[in-house]
Amino acid sequence: MTNDERTLTAAAERVLGLLKARRLTLGVAESCTGGLVGHALTNVSGSSDSFLGGVISYSNEVKRDLVYVPEELLIAYGAVSRPVAIAMAQGVRRAIGVDVGLSVTGIAGPSGGTPDKPVGTVHIAVAGPWGEAAEHHVWDSDRVTNKVRSALAVLALLERELRRGV
Amino acid sequence: MTNDERTLTAAAERVLGLLKARRLTLGVAESCTGGLVGHALTNVSGSSDSFLGGVISYSNEVKRDLVYVPEELLIAYGAVSRPVAIAMAQGVRRAIGVDVGLSVTGIAGPSGGTPDKPVGTVHIAVAGPWGEAAEHHVWDSDRVTNKVRSALAVLALLERELRRGV
Repeated sequence: MTNDERTLTAAAERVLGLLKARRLTLGVAESCTGGLVGHALTNVSGSSDSFLGGVISYSNEVKRDLVYVPEELLIAYGAVSRPVAIAMAQGVRRAIGVDVGLSVTGIAGPSGGTPDKPVGTVHIAVAGPWGEAAEHHVWDSDRVTNKVRSALAVLALLERELRRGV
Repeated sequence: MTNDERTLTAAAERVLGLLKARRLTLGVAESCTGGLVGHALTNVSGSSDSFLGGVISYSNEVKRDLVYVPEELLIAYGAVSRPVAIAMAQGVRRAIGVDVGLSVTGIAGPSGGTPDKPVGTVHIAVAGPWGEAAEHHVWDSDRVTNKVRSALAVLALLERELRRGV
């Protein structure tokens, strides 16, 4: 494993430990990370105790049909936006039937950027029975590294939410 | 990137090139690989031309509800079986609305093996408008390496099917 993979797996282990202690199940909705968060989680033996699955919602149609992102949000804000990230995290809770959903939507690059949303822009969110948390970042690295940073960021956000005792 | 990641990304590039030349769209249904195949595909810039998304169907409920694996198959053959792999590949075509579906279901280890299905057993399948192809392997490595080998195997199976000109 690379250092990135080790860091990701360690982050996944911490999150899975907190979820298990709190008896919470998790699902993921991944756009630009394309499955990397699920991969990191399932590198941990015993992850199936808490991690039930997810949706790789790469196209807008999959965001709409499989994780219930309202079409209006996609039109009004675009797929890479805070409202869509939150809707994906909420939607995957319903789609998979889990307590906690996390989401990542962004522009990994090298193309696809706009003046408003440059390459590296990513919105992440976590939704649970207690509500939602979201944040955004603008990474400045290559496509694969931007994906890794996004995966780390959403696992860190989930860890913080779980440690807040919510 | 590690050598494994480079090999995976190269396999993903070949598959995406073939899909694009044939104007075919792809979706994935991943159990034991947990998102690794989607991650490899989306490491390739421009993958969204052909790759629309997928389902990480880690639990049996997600296999049943999101990729339409008949409950009877899960009961009769178990989740790690050729019939379930084929049903996942067919089901994700319908779930995502794509031309081609691929699937991976297996026991990455280190626990979860049985005498019939030892750790490292994986069934993979590809389904397209032309029909289905499936194979199985029994890997003998650690959890993460078993996942990488499974991802490589299903991309190789898809590449062979596409090169057969089907």
